[in-house]
Amino acid sequence: MDHQELFTYPEAHLRDFAAAVFGHFGIGAADAELAADVLIKSDLRGIESHGVARLHTYFEMLELGRINPKPNIRIVREKASVATVDGDNGLGLIVGPNANEIAMDKAERHGSGWVGVCNTNHFGFAGYYPLQALERDLIGWAMTNSTKLVAPLWGAERMLGTNPIAIAFPGYTEPPIVIDMATSAVAYGKIEIALRKNQSIPSGWIIDKEGRDTTNPRDMIDGGAQLPLGSSREMGGHKGYGLASMVDILCAVLSGANWGPFAPPFALRQEIPERSVGKGIGHFFGAMQIDGFIDKDEFKKRIDDWIHVFRKTKPAPGTDGPLIPGDPEREAEAIRSKEGIPLLKPVVDDLIDISKKTGIAFKTQ
Amino acid sequence: MDHQELFTYPEAHLRDFAAAVFGHFGIGAADAELAADVLIKSDLRGIESHGVARLHTYFEMLELGRINPKPNIRIVREKASVATVDGDNGLGLIVGPNANEIAMDKAERHGSGWVGVCNTNHFGFAGYYPLQALERDLIGWAMTNSTKLVAPLWGAERMLGTNPIAIAFPGYTEPPIVIDMATSAVAYGKIEIALRKNQSIPSGWIIDKEGRDTTNPRDMIDGGAQLPLGSSREMGGHKGYGLASMVDILCAVLSGANWGPFAPPFALRQEIPERSVGKGIGHFFGAMQIDGFIDKDEFKKRIDDWIHVFRKTKPAPGTDGPLIPGDPEREAEAIRSKEGIPLLKPVVDDLIDISKKTGIAFKTQ
Repeated sequence: MDHQELFTYPEAHLRDFAAAVFGHFGIGAADAELAADVLIKSDLRGIESHGVARLHTYFEMLELGRINPKPNIRIVREKASVATVDGDNGLGLIVGPNANEIAMDKAERHGSGWVGVCNTNHFGFAGYYPLQALERDLIGWAMTNSTKLVAPLWGAERMLGTNPIAIAFPGYTEPPIVIDMATSAVAYGKIEIALRKNQSIPSGWIIDKEGRDTTNPRDMIDGGAQLPLGSSREMGGHKGYGLASMVDILCAVLSGANWGPFAPPFALRQEIPERSVGKGIGHFFGAMQIDGFIDKDEFKKRIDDWIHVFRKTKPAPGTDGPLIPGDPEREAEAIRSKEGIPLLKPVVDDLIDISKKTGIAFKTQ
Repeated sequence: MDHQELFTYPEAHLRDFAAAVFGHFGIGAADAELAADVLIKSDLRGIESHGVARLHTYFEMLELGRINPKPNIRIVREKASVATVDGDNGLGLIVGPNANEIAMDKAERHGSGWVGVCNTNHFGFAGYYPLQALERDLIGWAMTNSTKLVAPLWGAERMLGTNPIAIAFPGYTEPPIVIDMATSAVAYGKIEIALRKNQSIPSGWIIDKEGRDTTNPRDMIDGGAQLPLGSSREMGGHKGYGLASMVDILCAVLSGANWGPFAPPFALRQEIPERSVGKGIGHFFGAMQIDGFIDKDEFKKRIDDWIHVFRKTKPAPGTDGPLIPGDPEREAEAIRSKEGIPLLKPVVDDLIDISKKTGIAFKTQ
């Protein structure tokens, strides 16, 4: 556990503040609320790394004109069930939901919809998009590429982002199954926590700048790289690398965005790639209409059955047995939507800084 | 290395033999050749576990009437870009290619095609299907569920198959990128090899029947289970479990097949599941038309560029640097299509046994 002091804010307060900050840059009210919703939903679900902790970065990028506050998001190529969208360098938090909606509309008309996106920026947590699909009784997928952090298996340098994959399936009386995972062995945030606490990390999370195994988290910021899921050849590191490559190609090679090591940085202090091979970063959204495959209610009842059977799995020693994917996030949301969202001091300081610079009130406790 | 004696056969010889064996059960010539192609292609690509080594199991299942040699493969539900196919308990080696073709046809008409399959059997190696899609300039996906072998993270029993995911992307002058991976930490065959050689295995590959970590491969056959990609919570085992669940749900819950621990066994000597929750096992195929997203040649040139950049990744110490997914299989195919396919003695013995039982000539060397 990380024993830093936490400050808890009601969801609505953070939501209003984030929307006002986006509005400050001329983003329309509906879009500003949408972007705030993506951030706050991440905090509600316990994925703090992709929530308001990132507002200051979006703020900086908007302030410097690196992100277009009023993008003309448009379809540049299309067939019945597929399309490529150009996000016009808009906020990923706005481009993402718009492109996802195109995928969902196509799914309702043609059974499925698959949308690649170029010329966009970081879109928040990947799980947001399949959650939107659930509201329309669709199976939703989302992927994105991102700034390089991860080495391919047998590589000694950063070449790929943590490239997440998310997908969700609705239950009938049970809550949905929500899978949302980076294709790296571990979240970058866990390395940061070890660094802050001066602790070593397990072998297999990162390599140093020479490509050697290391348990010192400092080696990551000194030019090291994260390892893909599976970490070593023996434990399946080629599979994590394969998944990260799949995400990179679907999101960025296919859409005309920057792929691999050329994905532009999310934050100002990150290295600028040496080449540009496209526009912005890339996303990939999918949506499938359940009724195109099977009766919708039958599917949901089968999902309930799946959940019941997997919950009854014999537990491994020292555990309470397997979770259903999405359990931890749903439990966090139940608590945080009632009790508020806990933020670390540096995050609160960042929000206060934005408040000072914009004049938008941020109530400190 | 495994120093067992190898017997090498020309591809055409094994192909003709396998087709004749399928023909022996009344399977039509075109289908028998198709099924043989799936098996032989696996051997050519160095994936021996899914090649003619499995012919004896298909033979036994056909002989006992457990597999329908003349299935009426039909679409049971459909929208423009999606469908569910009932394989009528046919050979997966025939049902799979037929369902994949439906997905590819839909992709050419509507931009993409997604086909779930129930009432089918093991379909060979997953990579076969995206390779078929490449011949039509499509991006192809394939997944299948399979007999339980893998425990969910924090579980102490087998609940999921090794549930592979395959996808391929065409290059322009470069060979295609072909990703084909089980969602378990390791292939079952590697545990078998350690067992045969009386060697220990790395921690993280399997658990024993009580759910404890073990390095003894014998614990697997004594009621243990494989671990999902990532192995432990710390190293991302929840992600491998999430991927295996995704494959299980897309292939089997969505199509009306048997999911999770209820997937019927591939071989006669495997345990029969206690419940039936659908028909046969399930597959899931996808195909996407590149032109629906981006100019086809532009995409292929971008893939070439991706390959060139990733080949130049700085190598980790003691390695030649990262491979491109599909490299090892393509190199195996180049050698084996010229020099023949090497088989282990027990595999040859199985083929001779089939030859005796059917009267189909199998030339021993």
